Amino acid sequence: MPYDSAISRLPGFLEQVPAFLAGDDTPRDLLERCIAVIEARDPEIQAFVTLNLKGARAAADAAGARYAAGNPLSPVDGLPIGLKDIIETSDMATQCGSPIFEGYEGGRDAPIAAALRRGGAVIVGKTASTEFAYGAITATRNPFDPERTPGTSSSGSAAAVGAGMLPVAIGTQLMSSVMRPASYCGHVGVKPTYGAIRQAGIHPFSPSGEHVGAHAATLADAWAVLRFLSNEAGPVPGSRGITGPVTLPAAKKPVRLMRMYTPGWEIADPQVRAALEAGLDRLSNAGVEIVEPAGVPALAALEDDFARAERCIAEIAAFEMRWPFFEYQAAGHTHHPRIARVLARAHEITLADYHAALDFKAAFGDRLLGVRGTVDGIVGLTAPEVAPVGLENIGHPVMCAPATCAGAPSLTLPLLAAHDMPLGLQLVGFHGQDAGLFARAAWVENLFG
Amino acid sequence: MPYDSAISRLPGFLEQVPAFLAGDDTPRDLLERCIAVIEARDPEIQAFVTLNLKGARAAADAAGARYAAGNPLSPVDGLPIGLKDIIETSDMATQCGSPIFEGYEGGRDAPIAAALRRGGAVIVGKTASTEFAYGAITATRNPFDPERTPGTSSSGSAAAVGAGMLPVAIGTQLMSSVMRPASYCGHVGVKPTYGAIRQAGIHPFSPSGEHVGAHAATLADAWAVLRFLSNEAGPVPGSRGITGPVTLPAAKKPVRLMRMYTPGWEIADPQVRAALEAGLDRLSNAGVEIVEPAGVPALAALEDDFARAERCIAEIAAFEMRWPFFEYQAAGHTHHPRIARVLARAHEITLADYHAALDFKAAFGDRLLGVRGTVDGIVGLTAPEVAPVGLENIGHPVMCAPATCAGAPSLTLPLLAAHDMPLGLQLVGFHGQDAGLFARAAWVENLFG
Repeated sequence: MPYDSAISRLPGFLEQVPAFLAGDDTPRDLLERCIAVIEARDPEIQAFVTLNLKGARAAADAAGARYAAGNPLSPVDGLPIGLKDIIETSDMATQCGSPIFEGYEGGRDAPIAAALRRGGAVIVGKTASTEFAYGAITATRNPFDPERTPGTSSSGSAAAVGAGMLPVAIGTQLMSSVMRPASYCGHVGVKPTYGAIRQAGIHPFSPSGEHVGAHAATLADAWAVLRFLSNEAGPVPGSRGITGPVTLPAAKKPVRLMRMYTPGWEIADPQVRAALEAGLDRLSNAGVEIVEPAGVPALAALEDDFARAERCIAEIAAFEMRWPFFEYQAAGHTHHPRIARVLARAHEITLADYHAALDFKAAFGDRLLGVRGTVDGIVGLTAPEVAPVGLENIGHPVMCAPATCAGAPSLTLPLLAAHDMPLGLQLVGFHGQDAGLFARAAWVENLFG
Repeated sequence: MPYDSAISRLPGFLEQVPAFLAGDDTPRDLLERCIAVIEARDPEIQAFVTLNLKGARAAADAAGARYAAGNPLSPVDGLPIGLKDIIETSDMATQCGSPIFEGYEGGRDAPIAAALRRGGAVIVGKTASTEFAYGAITATRNPFDPERTPGTSSSGSAAAVGAGMLPVAIGTQLMSSVMRPASYCGHVGVKPTYGAIRQAGIHPFSPSGEHVGAHAATLADAWAVLRFLSNEAGPVPGSRGITGPVTLPAAKKPVRLMRMYTPGWEIADPQVRAALEAGLDRLSNAGVEIVEPAGVPALAALEDDFARAERCIAEIAAFEMRWPFFEYQAAGHTHHPRIARVLARAHEITLADYHAALDFKAAFGDRLLGVRGTVDGIVGLTAPEVAPVGLENIGHPVMCAPATCAGAPSLTLPLLAAHDMPLGLQLVGFHGQDAGLFARAAWVENLFG
C-alpha cells in the first residue's frame, strides 16, 4: 500500500489515559484493539516471535482495576508494549534470533522488563531481532510494503509499532538499530543519551555502545516510557539518567540547527534529498536557522567525526563481544558473516586498540558537546534511503552512527516521505539533555503537524 | 596458632613456572599440593562451598602438556585459582550465599571465568561469599584463629589463600570486601581501579561500585592475574583496563606518601596503632617522606571525603540494587538485616539522590587524582583492627571505603601484625595507575622483606 503518513498516526497511549480514568475505556479494551491488529496483520508482517496474550490480558485487567479506582501505578500503567527478543523476560523465552538461544528461558526479567511490570505496563510479546541484534535477519516485513525490510536490528519492534499493533515497543541500538527501522516503518524512534537506561539482562554484543531506545506512536509516549525506565530501572550503573517532567517537555523552538550530511548524503537519491530539502525549507521558513557545517570550523570538524563513527563503534564491539562470542565459537557455533567479520577482529584487537577507540569516542563526544553554544542541535536524514526492497537489504547506518558513537540523544520523526514510503527526520541533541531534545522535537512536530 | 607472617609466604605461582618449563614440576603436582592443604584444613576453615577437583585435575594436566611442549597459553596457564561464589561458572553452581540461589546452575562462565579458562588457569572451586556479598555471613573461619572471622564478604577467597590452599582467589569489593579479609588473613589483596575488569556474570549488588579484585600469595601473582583479566576478559564496557608489563612492574621507591587516618584511626587500639607507627617509621627511615594531611589543605580535604565514602557507596548501592532485589522481595524472600536496611532505602531513593551520590563520588575522585603532584600515593592501615573474634563480628570497612568510593586502586600487604594476628598495610594509588601502585608496593615489600 502506498505510504500515507496518517496510517502511522495511531492514537498515542497517553491520549487514551483520560478515558481510562473517566471510565469510558479500559486498558483491556485497548489491548484487545492491539490484539485485533496483531491478528489481522502479524501473520504477514511477523513482528512477534512470542506472544503472551494470557499474561497481557491479566496485566491489562489489573491495570483497569487500578484506573477504575483512580490509582494508576505509573505513567505506563496499562501500556501495551513489546520487547525486542534480546531482552530477558520471566514469562517468555528470550531467543536472540539465534539457534543458540532457541527456546531459552532464563526465568527472570531484565531490569527494564521488571520496571515495566512494577509500573503496570502490559508486556504483550517479544519482537523479532536479527541474530544477537547484528547477524542473520528475521522474516519480518515492512508494514507499508511487504517486499521491503522493516529495518534492522529492532525489526519486530519497528514493524509492530509501524503497523499499529502496539503504541510502544522497546528496541536497542548499537549503530542505527532503533532509529533506522523507525524511519523505514514511519513512526517515532528515540535513542536516548548513552547510559540513561540500564542494559542488564539484555544479551550483550557491545554493551558500552548499546542503547535502550523506544519505538512509539507518539513523541509523548516515547518520552513517558524512556523517562520512566530511566528512573525505575535506573541508568547503566554509574551513569546519569533522564530528568525532566513526567510528561513530554513543553515544545521549544530551536533557534539554530546544524545540518548533518555524513557520507550518507552522497548515496541519498534525488527523491530522498528533495524530501529533506523540503523539510529544511519548512523549518527555515518558520524562522529556524539551518547552519551549514562548511562555514563553521567546529561544525565542519564534526562531519569528519561523523565519518569515523561506524568504524569506532565496530572496534569497540569487536573488543567487547569476545564474551560471550568466544565461548559460542569454542562450542562450535558459526554465525552470520556480519557477526563473523567482527568476531575475526575480536581475536586480534588489543586492549590498546580498545583504548584508542574509546579515546576517539570521548574526544568526539566532547567536540559534539562543545557546539552547544553554536547550535541547539543537529538535523538531517535518519537514513539515506527509504526501506530498501528485499528483506536482506538492510540499508545504511551511516546517518545514525554519529549520535550513537558520541552517546548523544537522537530521535527520528515520521515527517518525510519518498517513493511512497515513510522517511524519518532526525534530530540530534546533546549528551544528557534528552529533555531539551524532546522539547525541540515537539516544536518541530507541531510545525509539521 | 599465633601469627607468624612466614605462614602466609606460600610460594607464589609465578615462582613455580620455571620448574614447569624445566620439567622439574608440573601444574598437576602443584594442584595436588593445593588439594592436600584443602583436605587438611578446609573441613575446619570452610573456605570452599563447591570444589570441582575432577575438572581441575583435567585442566592441570592439559596445562602440564602445554608447559612440557614449551607453549603455555598465558601467564596464568596452570594457575590453581578459586572464584568467589557470586561469579558464574559453567561447571559449578553459583549460590551467592543465598537460599534463592541454592544449587543454581546458569550453565555459563562469567567473562572472568571464561578468560581464565582460555588462559589455561585451573578453576579449583567456588569460595564462600556472604549472602549476595552483603548479607548473612558464611561459616568460614580465619586460618590463623578459628574463633575469628576471616573477614567479609570475600570470606572464602581470603581464607583459602591465607591458609595456603591456593596461591590466588578472586574476590569482589563494594566497600572493603577484598582488602579487609586479606588483611585479616595475612596475604596480598588488591582492588584495582574501578572498571579495570569486567563484572558481567557476577551477581549484581551495586555494579557501579563493585570491583573485581584478587587475593594472592604474592604481589607478582596478583599483578599477573589482574592484568591478564583486564586484557582478556576486558574492562567494564567503556572503561579503561590495566596496562603495563606482563609481569610485576619494577620496584619504584615512593618519594612521598600521604598518611591516611579516616574515622577508623579513632577506633584502632594501641597495639594496632603501634604496628602502623612502626611500619611508617620503617618507611621514614628508608627515606620515604610520610606527609601528614593536617599540614596540606588538599590532603586535609581528602580526609573529609574519606569520612563520607561509606555513605556515598551505600546510597549508590541502594539505587542500583533495586534490580534484582525488588524482584526477590516481590517473590517473598527476606534478607539479612544488613541487606534489608539498604533495601528499605532502595524504595525511597530517587534518581536525583543517585545523581547527587555520583556527583560526590566524581568530585572526590577528582580531588584524589588532584594530589598526584603532591604525593606518590597514600599509606595507612587496611582495617582498624585485626580479625575480630566471633564469626558474626565483621569489623569495619572504614579504611577501605575511601579508595573504593573514589575508584582508585588500592592494595594491602601482609607486613604488620598485632595481637598475634596479621594486619595489612594499605597503599592507595591513583585512578588508572595500577602499574604505578604495584611498583611502589613492590619497593615497600622489598624494604620489609
